[in-house]
Amino acid sequence: MDRLRVGILGATGMIGQRFFTLLHGHPGFELVAMYASARRHGSTLASAWRLPDSPGPEASGLEIREGSVDAVRGDRLDLVFSALPASAAAVEAELAAAGVAVFSNASAHRLDAGVPLLVPEVNPDHLGLLGNNGPGFVVTNPNCTVTGLALVLHALRRAVRFDRVFVTSYPALSGAGFDGPSAMDSHGNVLPHIPSEEDKLAAETPKILGRLDGQAIVPADIRVYANCARVPVRDGHLEAVTLECEERVDLGEIAAALAGFRGLPQEKRLPTAPESPILVRTEADRPQPARDVYAGTPSRARGMAVTVGRLRADGAVLRLFLLVNNTIRGGAGGSVLNAELAHATGHLG
Amino acid sequence: MDRLRVGILGATGMIGQRFFTLLHGHPGFELVAMYASARRHGSTLASAWRLPDSPGPEASGLEIREGSVDAVRGDRLDLVFSALPASAAAVEAELAAAGVAVFSNASAHRLDAGVPLLVPEVNPDHLGLLGNNGPGFVVTNPNCTVTGLALVLHALRRAVRFDRVFVTSYPALSGAGFDGPSAMDSHGNVLPHIPSEEDKLAAETPKILGRLDGQAIVPADIRVYANCARVPVRDGHLEAVTLECEERVDLGEIAAALAGFRGLPQEKRLPTAPESPILVRTEADRPQPARDVYAGTPSRARGMAVTVGRLRADGAVLRLFLLVNNTIRGGAGGSVLNAELAHATGHLG
Amino acid sequence: MDRLRVGILGATGMIGQRFFTLLHGHPGFELVAMYASARRHGSTLASAWRLPDSPGPEASGLEIREGSVDAVRGDRLDLVFSALPASAAAVEAELAAAGVAVFSNASAHRLDAGVPLLVPEVNPDHLGLLGNNGPGFVVTNPNCTVTGLALVLHALRRAVRFDRVFVTSYPALSGAGFDGPSAMDSHGNVLPHIPSEEDKLAAETPKILGRLDGQAIVPADIRVYANCARVPVRDGHLEAVTLECEERVDLGEIAAALAGFRGLPQEKRLPTAPESPILVRTEADRPQPARDVYAGTPSRARGMAVTVGRLRADGAVLRLFLLVNNTIRGGAGGSVLNAELAHATGHLG
Amino acid sequence: MDRLRVGILGATGMIGQRFFTLLHGHPGFELVAMYASARRHGSTLASAWRLPDSPGPEASGLEIREGSVDAVRGDRLDLVFSALPASAAAVEAELAAAGVAVFSNASAHRLDAGVPLLVPEVNPDHLGLLGNNGPGFVVTNPNCTVTGLALVLHALRRAVRFDRVFVTSYPALSGAGFDGPSAMDSHGNVLPHIPSEEDKLAAETPKILGRLDGQAIVPADIRVYANCARVPVRDGHLEAVTLECEERVDLGEIAAALAGFRGLPQEKRLPTAPESPILVRTEADRPQPARDVYAGTPSRARGMAVTVGRLRADGAVLRLFLLVNNTIRGGAGGSVLNAELAHATGHLG
Repeated sequence: MDRLRVGILGATGMIGQRFFTLLHGHPGFELVAMYASARRHGSTLASAWRLPDSPGPEASGLEIREGSVDAVRGDRLDLVFSALPASAAAVEAELAAAGVAVFSNASAHRLDAGVPLLVPEVNPDHLGLLGNNGPGFVVTNPNCTVTGLALVLHALRRAVRFDRVFVTSYPALSGAGFDGPSAMDSHGNVLPHIPSEEDKLAAETPKILGRLDGQAIVPADIRVYANCARVPVRDGHLEAVTLECEERVDLGEIAAALAGFRGLPQEKRLPTAPESPILVRTEADRPQPARDVYAGTPSRARGMAVTVGRLRADGAVLRLFLLVNNTIRGGAGGSVLNAELAHATGHLG
Repeated sequence: MDRLRVGILGATGMIGQRFFTLLHGHPGFELVAMYASARRHGSTLASAWRLPDSPGPEASGLEIREGSVDAVRGDRLDLVFSALPASAAAVEAELAAAGVAVFSNASAHRLDAGVPLLVPEVNPDHLGLLGNNGPGFVVTNPNCTVTGLALVLHALRRAVRFDRVFVTSYPALSGAGFDGPSAMDSHGNVLPHIPSEEDKLAAETPKILGRLDGQAIVPADIRVYANCARVPVRDGHLEAVTLECEERVDLGEIAAALAGFRGLPQEKRLPTAPESPILVRTEADRPQPARDVYAGTPSRARGMAVTVGRLRADGAVLRLFLLVNNTIRGGAGGSVLNAELAHATGHLG
Repeated sequence: MDRLRVGILGATGMIGQRFFTLLHGHPGFELVAMYASARRHGSTLASAWRLPDSPGPEASGLEIREGSVDAVRGDRLDLVFSALPASAAAVEAELAAAGVAVFSNASAHRLDAGVPLLVPEVNPDHLGLLGNNGPGFVVTNPNCTVTGLALVLHALRRAVRFDRVFVTSYPALSGAGFDGPSAMDSHGNVLPHIPSEEDKLAAETPKILGRLDGQAIVPADIRVYANCARVPVRDGHLEAVTLECEERVDLGEIAAALAGFRGLPQEKRLPTAPESPILVRTEADRPQPARDVYAGTPSRARGMAVTVGRLRADGAVLRLFLLVNNTIRGGAGGSVLNAELAHATGHLG
Repeated sequence: MDRLRVGILGATGMIGQRFFTLLHGHPGFELVAMYASARRHGSTLASAWRLPDSPGPEASGLEIREGSVDAVRGDRLDLVFSALPASAAAVEAELAAAGVAVFSNASAHRLDAGVPLLVPEVNPDHLGLLGNNGPGFVVTNPNCTVTGLALVLHALRRAVRFDRVFVTSYPALSGAGFDGPSAMDSHGNVLPHIPSEEDKLAAETPKILGRLDGQAIVPADIRVYANCARVPVRDGHLEAVTLECEERVDLGEIAAALAGFRGLPQEKRLPTAPESPILVRTEADRPQPARDVYAGTPSRARGMAVTVGRLRADGAVLRLFLLVNNTIRGGAGGSVLNAELAHATGHLG
C-alpha cells in the first residue's frame, strides 16, 4: 500500500529532529518535505543536526524550505507534522483552512473548541470533533508533562475515584529545546519556573479526560495543582503524583489497573504504539530517567511507554512516581501516534 | 567569658566536617576534641577533608580518637555535637546517661519521648522536656528536609489554617553523605527513593509543630504527604509545598507572615541565627540551589536562612517553593543553633 | 549456517551488559551462557540490569552461573567473552589451557607475550601469535582509551612519521564501571587520577602498533606520554592528541588518510565493523561525547567508529581531538569484532 | 590612609560581579562607581546578581551608569577595573589617553607593545613599560588559563630548562560567562572548541615570561601547544602540562621549586596575595576543581593560589596537573592584585 506523504514544520528544532528520527523507515508515512524558518532555507537537516545519533544520509536529501500555505499545498502532502513554537503556530490554522491535515505539538491550538487534544489511548473518540470539518484540521498532542499524567490518570480512573490531583514535576532540560537555559543557570541547579507549564497542566488535563458531547468536549471534573522545577537531566520528565481519593486505596487493584491498561492503539496495533502503554515497576528506586526514559516495545515504540513506580497508599491518599519521555511520547512520538490513529480511523482522506 | 568546651562525634563525615567549619572561630564554643570510627584513630581531620574549602591548619591540630563514654568524659566537655549515622547513635544515649549534653543530627532519638526535636525559631519551649533530666541529655535537630518545611509551616500557621501538607522534595546529593549514590546512578538522573525520608517528613513535622504539655509533646494535627527524589545538585534541598487551607488564601498576608517572621534566636541574637530566618523572593525563578543555598546574614549565619518563592494561591490552595541548605541549616548549623539556644536559656551547666 | 555458541564471563557488570546488547540478534554468535560472581548465581541478567535501554525478555531466559572451567567446558562453547575485572581474570588463562577460546576485555593478559592485543583494523596479523596454540587461547582488546588512539595513530602513520605522542584524555564515568566514583566526588568535578591508566597507554600502544616477527611482537618505536582526568560525562572518551612529526604536516593529506582508512574488517564486511572506522568532522566544535559517541554505521556498528576533529598543524606539530565510545569500540564491541575476525580468518575451530 | 577611589567597567557580567565581591571591604580600594551597558543604566547590581552568594546591601547602593570617558573622569577615580568583553574594550585605550589608570581583564590590549601583561609574582618589572606614559595607562592580566600556566612555568624555570610546552586544559563553564553554552550543549558533554583560546596560550605565555629590555618586552623562547575543551564544571580550570626538558628531571627539586616559590606580592604582603602562590599536593588524586578551586590563604586570597599535583618524571619529560580559579586568580583577582602591585610600586599617582 502507498505510504502517505508527510512533511515537518519546524524541522530543525528539538521536536522537529525527533519527528525526523521517528519517521525514518515508518511503514505508513513517507517524509517528503521539511520546512523551517528563513535562516535555514536552502540547507539540509544534516547541517542543523544536534541529537546524539547520526541523522543518516536521508537528512541530506531534502532541502529545507519555507512552510507557507502555498508551499505545503504545492507539495501535495497527506498531512503535516508541526514542531513549531506556539508563537509561530498561526500558520497551522491557515493550513487547516486550506485543507491540510495538521498534527501539531504546539500549544497554540490545544484548547481551541474544535481541536482534539489527543492521547490515543485515552480519548480517541475526541477525533469526533473533526466531524464537521473539511479535509483540513488541526489535531494536537498535549504538553509533554500532561501526556504522561493524563495517560496514568485515565488508567487510574478505572480503579479509583478522585477529583484533586497534586503533581510536582522534575522536567528535563530537553523540554526547553536546544537553546533553553544556559549552562551556568542549569548546571547543578534546579530552576523552579517554566513559563505557563503549571497552567497547562491545570487546563489541558481536564480537556483530555473530558467527554465528547455532540461537537463539544465537556471537561472532566478534575483539579490539577502543579509545581514544576527543571532539573539537570537530559531527557525524561519525572512526576510525583498525589491523589486524594474518595475511598481507601487498594494498591493491588491500582497496580493491576495500570499494568493491564490497553487502548485503541494497542488494539489496532498502530506502528508507534507500545505493547503496554504503562509499565509498572516494583523496585524501590524506579522509575528513573537514566533507566526508563526509552521504555517501550517494539523498537518503533521505544520511549512511548510511561513507567510508573513507588505506588504508596495511605488511607485514601495514593502516591506514585511516573516517568514520560518528553520528546518522544510527550512530543513527536505522541503526534505521530495521533496521525496513525487518525489514519486508522478513516480521518485522513 | 570562657568558651564552652565542645567535641564532635563522627567528625570525618559530611556533617562532621560542616560542624568543624561552623565551629571555627565560634564566639561561644571551643572545639577541643574530635571523634570518629576506628580506621581514623590517630589521624587528623586534614587527611579526611573532602569539602571544597581548605580546612585550615586547625584541622591538623587535633588527633581523631574513639568517641567512647570514657573518652568523652575524660575530655571534660561541656557538650558534644553528634554527626553519627543513626546506626551508630546508641552511644548518644549512653553519653547522656553519663551526664554529657549531646546535640545530635542523627535520626536515632528524634522521636524519643523525652528528646526535644528542635528548630529554635519554632519550638524553643520544647527544651522544657529536659526539665527532669540531669546534666546529660540529647537534643536533636530534624531531618534536613523537615527543618526547612517546619520553619515555613510554623510561620504560615500564623496567617492561615491547614492540616494537610503535600510536599515534594528535590534533595541534593550531599544529603546522602560523601559516599552516597555512585556517579553512574546519579549523573543526569533523578533517584526517586531515599530510604525512610518520606516517613521522616510525616513523623517529625507534627512533633516539631506540637505543643509541650507538662513533660510531653502533643503532636500537631497535621498530615504530611511526601514524595522525595534526589537530583544531581551538590547542595541545597528544594521543596515544592502545596497546602489545602481552610479559607481563601491572601498572598499578601502570607508573604508578610513569612518575611516578617522572627523567633527567639533572633531576639537573643544567637551567633549562628540569621537576621531573617525566612527570605521571600519575588522573582519568578527563585529559589534556586545555585543562587540561594548560602542565604543568610551575618556571615556566621551563611546558609542558615530558608528561601521561599513562587507563592501562588488558587482559592484555598497555597503553593510555594522553599530551599534549605541541607548540611548547614538542615544539618550541622541547626545543631549548633540548638546548642546556642540551650546555652542562652540556661540548660548547659 | 549454524551460529557459534558463546558465553559471557562477568555478565552483570557494565561491559558484561554491553556484551549482552551487542550479541542480541548477532548473525554469527548465539549467546547460550552467562557467568558472574557468586552473589548473582541463580538470578538472571534482568535483575541486575542498569543500562538505559531495556534488556528485553531474553535477559530473563538464561540463569547466571559460576564461570568455572568445568562449567564453561560443560556448556560446549565455541568461545567465551570476558568482562571480568583484571583481578579475577586468572580464570581466562585456565580456560585457554583447557581448550577454550577467550576474547577478553580484561587488562590481565594484554601484555603477555603469546596473547594478541588486537584492534582488527590495525594489527589483524597479530592473530598469528596463536599459531602454536591449541584450540584454547586468549585474545585481548586494549584499554578503552588506547583503542581509539591506536586506530588513529595507525591511520596517521600512513601519512606522516612520528615517534612521540602526547595525549591527554577526558575519560567518561562509565569507564569506571557501575560502581565507580561517588556522586559527590564526580559531580561538577574532574578527577585527575585513574590507577594505571596512563601506564596502559604507554605500554599497550607500542605493542598494538608493533610488528609480528615469527612468534613475537616487536613493539613499535613510539613513546606515549599521557595525562588522564575523568570528567562528568556518562559515555565517550575524548582525547587531545599532539604529535611531534619528523616533517612539516600537510593537513589535507592527514584528513584524507584518516577518512579513507579501511582495514580487514571492512574488507571482510564483519557484522560489527563500521563502514568507516574513522570519521573526520570539519565543524569547529567536534567531536563531542554528546553528539558523536554512537558514531558508526550500519546499526550493528553503532558506537564502533572513532570520530576525529579539530585537525591543526603548526609546522611539524599536529594536533587533533578524537572520541571513542569506551564501552562499545573501546570495550565489548572491540572484543566482539576481535572474535568476528578470528572466526573469519579460521582461528575458531 | 585614604583608600583609592575605584570603579568597575562591565560590572554586571561574571567577572564584573567577581570584582565587586573582591573589592568588598578591601583595605586599599573603595568602590565608588559601577558602569555597564545601556540596558542596565539606572538599575543596581543587586538586580543583575547571579553569583551564588548574596551581593549584600552594598550592591543596592550604587547606580549603574554609562562608562564613558566623561563619566569616568567626572567620578575622579584613581583607577578603574575593566571586565569588558574584548569587543567593547576600545574605551580602555580612550580612558588611558584621558589619564585614567585601567586594570583590565579584557583580551583586547594584552599583546599591545606598551601594555604590561602582568602576573605580579612573575613579571612585576614589566610595569616598567609604563615609564613613558602619563598618569593614564592600561595594565592587563592574562587569559584565565594562561595565568595558572605562566605562574607554574615561571617557578619551574628556576629548576629546569625547557622550551616546548604541551598543555591540555579542562576549562570550566564560568569561563564562558553567565550566558555561555546552552544546557543541552554542555550537560554531560565536553566542548572541544573555545574561540581563540589555544592561540591566546601560545601568544600570551611568551610575553609574560619575557624580558623587559628598555621599553620593550623580548618574548621568552617558549612554544606552547595547546588543546582546550570545556567540561561541565562550574568553576576552576584544570590543566595537564607536559614539558620536554633539556635534562633529566628531578622531582624533588621540582616540587621544592614550586612549593617554595614566592614573588614580590608575597614580599610586599599585598592584601590579595596568597601566602603561597603555588600549593603542591602529594595525594594521588589532586588537584580537583571541587576541592581546590578556592585554595589560598588568608581569606582575602581565597581562590588566588594555584594548586599543582601529580608530578611525574619520565626521563626528561615532566608531567603535572595544575588548577587555577578562572574567575578569581585567572580573572578579577588577578587584576586586583595587579592594581595592588602598581600602587605599592608607586605607579598610581
